[in-house]
Amino acid sequence: MGLTLYSAWRATAPYRVRIGLQLKGLSYDYVPIDLIKGEQREPAYKAVNPQGLTPALDLGDGGVLTQSVAILEWLEETRPDPPILPEDPLDRQMVRTMALIIACDIHPLNNTRVGRALHKLGVSKEDNLAWVQRWIADGFDTLEPLVATYGKGFAFGETPSIADCCLIPQVYSANRYELDLAPWPAIRAVNAQALAHPAFQAAHPKQQPDAVLI
Amino acid sequence: MGLTLYSAWRATAPYRVRIGLQLKGLSYDYVPIDLIKGEQREPAYKAVNPQGLTPALDLGDGGVLTQSVAILEWLEETRPDPPILPEDPLDRQMVRTMALIIACDIHPLNNTRVGRALHKLGVSKEDNLAWVQRWIADGFDTLEPLVATYGKGFAFGETPSIADCCLIPQVYSANRYELDLAPWPAIRAVNAQALAHPAFQAAHPKQQPDAVLI
Repeated sequence: MGLTLYSAWRATAPYRVRIGLQLKGLSYDYVPIDLIKGEQREPAYKAVNPQGLTPALDLGDGGVLTQSVAILEWLEETRPDPPILPEDPLDRQMVRTMALIIACDIHPLNNTRVGRALHKLGVSKEDNLAWVQRWIADGFDTLEPLVATYGKGFAFGETPSIADCCLIPQVYSANRYELDLAPWPAIRAVNAQALAHPAFQAAHPKQQPDAVLI
Repeated sequence: MGLTLYSAWRATAPYRVRIGLQLKGLSYDYVPIDLIKGEQREPAYKAVNPQGLTPALDLGDGGVLTQSVAILEWLEETRPDPPILPEDPLDRQMVRTMALIIACDIHPLNNTRVGRALHKLGVSKEDNLAWVQRWIADGFDTLEPLVATYGKGFAFGETPSIADCCLIPQVYSANRYELDLAPWPAIRAVNAQALAHPAFQAAHPKQQPDAVLI
């Protein structure tokens, strides 16, 4: 039974799942979806994920999983080794809180469809960039003291967790949108350590077959 | 050790947690945060939750939990009876997918701070209402076939789950923003059944001490 990931190289939600798959040592086929061309809204992809969002993880047995954070929880429950959640319920709650600050309070405000909707409302390119930067900054302001308190190399403790699966793609997005990361040293330190980890390296946008490098 | 919930009567995220607490049969003190007055951004509340968002659940032992979906997962792990997640990993994945379609793809685009940000960008009241309705409609379009397939009274199966904790508040919000629910009969049926359930009744906005009824 082979796994197939429908992904887009720069999008943060599929990037989260790539990290999770790599951390669990799972191999998968990669199907690129071109978000600029709008392939996510075409019938071929909507047959896979009717919502028209990436990622989708095809299990090869008829099942297709969506929602990146739910996929990470499923990975943890079905392939528990190595763990990407700690054992203690309060620790798990903190890891999930970090992940959801990103997955609920930052990323949904900044994805492709929202940018298009703002453009249609007459919001300028400059205001759109400021919008993206504002929500990332707000979220990172909340995350920074949590990472500084609970991180010991990674966002929570000494090993990668679901929090890092979400944080490292969000830092990549912050760089893409030219946000100066100076105010968040704890986040920067975790990002530097993660980028040296083989699983995070294999999952990096620039390593994907659909990467456009200039 | 008493629980204290920082809540706002109409806001959907604390409403989710109220449902979870009621389903688990837990009593809690209720502290209202007036989102219209901006109490969530004042120092008194930021000392509880530095992010300035509701809900926050004070455990009475120094710990404070935030992020509604993470709190629901914590409730399930620490008070497993009655369950609000099914047992099978694929079933759990589906419940979490339903919950996150709401918690990631609908609600973050429509909360108070986003409305304020759109207003500052010069977006009119009418366009703002259309914006809110559009994201709810998009999300409900995705949810409807899932609820029709997996629901048997509640959103997934015959008993309330984390999916219902998120869905019922989102339906309440849809009504508040005058969205016609005709296109989504499966969601309407689940909502009707849930509103007859004692836990959902106790958690309803109109039952909260800070409710403003006109």
